[in-house]
Amino acid sequence: MDVAVIGLGLIGGSLLRALAAHGHRVTGYDLAEPTRAAARALAKAARVPPSADPGTRTIEIKGAWLVADSVAEAAAGADLVVLAVPLPAIPQVLAELADHPGLITDVTSVKGPVREFLRGRRFVGGHPMAGKESSSFLASDPHLFDGCAWVLCLEPDDTGLADWLALAGLVTSIGARVVPATATEHDETVARISHVPHLLAAALANVLDDHPLAGTLAAGSFRDGTRVAATRPELTAAMCGGNVAAVRRVLAGVVADLASYDRDLSAADPIAALTDALRGPSDLRRAWPAAGGEPVQVPADTRALLEWGRSGGWITEIADTIRGLRPETGRNDF
Amino acid sequence: MDVAVIGLGLIGGSLLRALAAHGHRVTGYDLAEPTRAAARALAKAARVPPSADPGTRTIEIKGAWLVADSVAEAAAGADLVVLAVPLPAIPQVLAELADHPGLITDVTSVKGPVREFLRGRRFVGGHPMAGKESSSFLASDPHLFDGCAWVLCLEPDDTGLADWLALAGLVTSIGARVVPATATEHDETVARISHVPHLLAAALANVLDDHPLAGTLAAGSFRDGTRVAATRPELTAAMCGGNVAAVRRVLAGVVADLASYDRDLSAADPIAALTDALRGPSDLRRAWPAAGGEPVQVPADTRALLEWGRSGGWITEIADTIRGLRPETGRNDF
Repeated sequence: MDVAVIGLGLIGGSLLRALAAHGHRVTGYDLAEPTRAAARALAKAARVPPSADPGTRTIEIKGAWLVADSVAEAAAGADLVVLAVPLPAIPQVLAELADHPGLITDVTSVKGPVREFLRGRRFVGGHPMAGKESSSFLASDPHLFDGCAWVLCLEPDDTGLADWLALAGLVTSIGARVVPATATEHDETVARISHVPHLLAAALANVLDDHPLAGTLAAGSFRDGTRVAATRPELTAAMCGGNVAAVRRVLAGVVADLASYDRDLSAADPIAALTDALRGPSDLRRAWPAAGGEPVQVPADTRALLEWGRSGGWITEIADTIRGLRPETGRNDF
Repeated sequence: MDVAVIGLGLIGGSLLRALAAHGHRVTGYDLAEPTRAAARALAKAARVPPSADPGTRTIEIKGAWLVADSVAEAAAGADLVVLAVPLPAIPQVLAELADHPGLITDVTSVKGPVREFLRGRRFVGGHPMAGKESSSFLASDPHLFDGCAWVLCLEPDDTGLADWLALAGLVTSIGARVVPATATEHDETVARISHVPHLLAAALANVLDDHPLAGTLAAGSFRDGTRVAATRPELTAAMCGGNVAAVRRVLAGVVADLASYDRDLSAADPIAALTDALRGPSDLRRAWPAAGGEPVQVPADTRALLEWGRSGGWITEIADTIRGLRPETGRNDF
């Protein structure tokens, strides 16, 4: 597949390098000239020298990539354009792709708004759960997506299944696990496992406020529970503020659980009441992350694929058939 | 100092080994015979052979310890008895120490209730912030307390300052940082930095309940935010249930912060409102943990020592004078 990657930050840069390392033709572009220069310099270093065998006519350039000087130049002739820019930059890039007929995907962390931007285009939204999204090409890593869950949005009404399958094939070819979900399901789920965790970390970090003794005594549970509170405020605010309805709904559920723990603490036997209440979450956390079960064949059908994702399954290979894994829970990662 | 350590789990076992390694005479006891046998076997391995120099008369046993077969045998002649048993076991051990005239300390994680048990005795409550409290002698480590904050309770009304200073000298001699605090201050502070973090982790782990897709997509922020949710429910319940008033008060503060984030999310410009709200906790978390400033001399006076702890300071050495460090904030551990 001939791929253009627009935006060469951590995710875009890592994708450029991962695709090239797996033998795809790939061209990158970034608005910042120093980033383009860094990507070009690294491409030269990655280039495998031509074979010394005089009988060989093809020059191997596996592992290298090209860097273009405009969005249009990068996208010319590409089968797929990956928008690896922040959400607010997407409309500008799309304007430069007005005449591009090919498939488009993106890697932003909220899928509802980007779906609106792309209405009427050949588009499949994506989101690799690869973390540390706030860094530069210099932090890029061709192995960033090894084993990572990569959501590809599948909308019963407007996603072309052939496009979805082509993109899923590309994503699995670089070692990621494809997870089918609608944009709405994605946004509700990342509110649970990423956006609300950032808000809890922030509220917990506030226990240090005007309390130097707490800073002296804080150790492991505080350190881990607040790690992501150090994220730049505007990044956390942009994630949560781009997903308001889902974040508020999930947050209300967490607050209701905390209120029930507070009631347990005021019970006649608080230790017994709280022990009962904490058994469920303790079991859930010990069983996470689930290991994959035996590979199975998944039907190439929109509704069946969405059901597969909802059941906790993921896709490992798109070939003549689709192969996936359903999780085996009960694994304890401690 | 001649020390008896009652209870040889992770904390007691590590303390036995750390004290011996630093040249103190130390005798351990544990109710479980297999634990006593393991401690004896390791003592033989730790024993440094006598010097081969025929002119030397003293036999060096630095690094080794004794293991007694009863509480009374362990405590006989000891300058200090350390209760390293769980809170519910303390009354039974105290009954066996009814005639013991010497100083007693403990290492439990809630200090109000143990203070009540020890009323009328020569007692200084303690709590090393060394984590992973739920393990056995086999997990013990003589370096567990290196650099760890170790609260020693100082009550203006009933703690003998000479006893407190003697114990502080012992604790600093094994490399820990002594933090002076009243039992009430300690319990309020650990509610902030340990007990409430455990409840937040549990509420967050519940987002996986009946939601397999969330388990597939969960990554770094979920992993760290919920790590301590896997703690055995009865341990978390015992900590929180032994500190009900402080935990409920701190939890109410955290829930109020979450409610204010929810209001920010419903503002006209949720991203701007949330960015403002998250700046404080982000700064607090980036500045933690604080590095120590220049060593200073701290007055040997109960009120001055408590004020030192409240201001975020700790004690590094008890000699002719007391030396301490006040934190220099602003260090970023990222």
